[in-house]
Amino acid sequence: MKKKNNNRVQILLTNDDGIESEGLYALYQELQDVADVVIVAPQGERSALGHAITLSDPLRVEKVKKNGQRYGYAVSGTPVDCVKLAVSVILKSRPDLVISGINSGLNTGVHIVYSGTVSAALEAVILGIPAIAVSVASTASLDFTHYTQFVRKLSLMVLHRGLPAGTLLNVNMPSQESGHNPEIVISRQAKCYVKDNFQKRVDPRNRIYYWLDTEELFMVEGGDDTGIDTDVEAVKKGKISITPIRCDLTDPQSIHLLQTWPLFRP
Amino acid sequence: MKKKNNNRVQILLTNDDGIESEGLYALYQELQDVADVVIVAPQGERSALGHAITLSDPLRVEKVKKNGQRYGYAVSGTPVDCVKLAVSVILKSRPDLVISGINSGLNTGVHIVYSGTVSAALEAVILGIPAIAVSVASTASLDFTHYTQFVRKLSLMVLHRGLPAGTLLNVNMPSQESGHNPEIVISRQAKCYVKDNFQKRVDPRNRIYYWLDTEELFMVEGGDDTGIDTDVEAVKKGKISITPIRCDLTDPQSIHLLQTWPLFRP
Repeated sequence: MKKKNNNRVQILLTNDDGIESEGLYALYQELQDVADVVIVAPQGERSALGHAITLSDPLRVEKVKKNGQRYGYAVSGTPVDCVKLAVSVILKSRPDLVISGINSGLNTGVHIVYSGTVSAALEAVILGIPAIAVSVASTASLDFTHYTQFVRKLSLMVLHRGLPAGTLLNVNMPSQESGHNPEIVISRQAKCYVKDNFQKRVDPRNRIYYWLDTEELFMVEGGDDTGIDTDVEAVKKGKISITPIRCDLTDPQSIHLLQTWPLFRP
Repeated sequence: MKKKNNNRVQILLTNDDGIESEGLYALYQELQDVADVVIVAPQGERSALGHAITLSDPLRVEKVKKNGQRYGYAVSGTPVDCVKLAVSVILKSRPDLVISGINSGLNTGVHIVYSGTVSAALEAVILGIPAIAVSVASTASLDFTHYTQFVRKLSLMVLHRGLPAGTLLNVNMPSQESGHNPEIVISRQAKCYVKDNFQKRVDPRNRIYYWLDTEELFMVEGGDDTGIDTDVEAVKKGKISITPIRCDLTDPQSIHLLQTWPLFRP
């Protein structure tokens, strides 16, 4: 695919599972004939880092080869650091699209705010570059063919049509059987929370420490809200979920409520 | 202040500047006669960590004294870890309110997504507890009296009236002169981005590293949007800004747009 000025389209690929991730590699291979694909990803796993950036430490960038060929750049920081460094320092020109993933494990509902995968894509749209975050339900090693083909199709559509400024697509895909062709739905982020389970342990020097264990997801849907049109529900029903997401946390409904508080009367 | 069951109200105090922060201590003193105040804060500075949680490392909790008196708990993790550990492990009962701050430096516009201060409060509302995040413009050591008096007043109002489930108040205050009584406004999060400036340096072993330098804030207000009702503008005009914020990143306007894409036609 070429741009109007006849240069090839450039896609920046990143993730939060690290540069050695299989999902990243599968996407890299799939997109080779669509665009120049540049990988800038964390050195190792950087899950659940949310929108963390590194301020107190220097960042290192290392060129990485795969099968003897140039593959990408490994960064010593977070997923958001990767996008910032790629755009400011590593890439010669601004990418036309940033794709973050494919992540092993869903990023739906409340997991969106903890997710390094989504945060990398969010950083891209903050910087004015269209972005897609991609996650799959299964965390086991698997055949990514069905997933990468869909991402390819979606990427071409985003490159062709663009996205509203500041908005990314958060894609979550169910475990797929070969030959299965899942329905695609546009969803909204589910209101839900995670029930924490801290394990209390004692170290060899008899000091107590805590370790966050697997967490359960609970839905919070108030009143009339069935939550049927959410990302969590879509994947649960075996559908591919696409949620348009942006960096705006304002709760517009509460603005009017707060203006009635006596604190704000002159 | 007492609850209906005649127990004293309990406030959890946290921040991202660490347990030794002056802003935290000022708030702790101010709220003593309002509630039982329990501090659970990071051991040291944990700025710009966004909604990061610690999964790959154990968490330590240490009791901290101040002036020979019991003061609070220092946690080896992030601000979000502090809230999770406080609610799950440290506190005997759920707090009635979580206050995060007082942070040295504003958390307005795009800074909200990088902010550990706001993320701690966001974690509280995800867990179903009302929360307030408080930041001030000046980063120099200063007299917090004006700020803490306002937070006290706002806290009593939140304890009395409650907040919509899932919504926190993100408070940003301008530098205040003694005797000055700033206007209070309800605002929305400004659309803006940060221009990164990475310094390229060489270490004593002749290896290159990068360090993120101070960043400039740029406004992105499209078309008719003047941005006059935003958090960034409010503080710039010397007002106290209060923005209701929630954990919902869905972009509702893009949902209709995406449904017109051929990808989603049966």
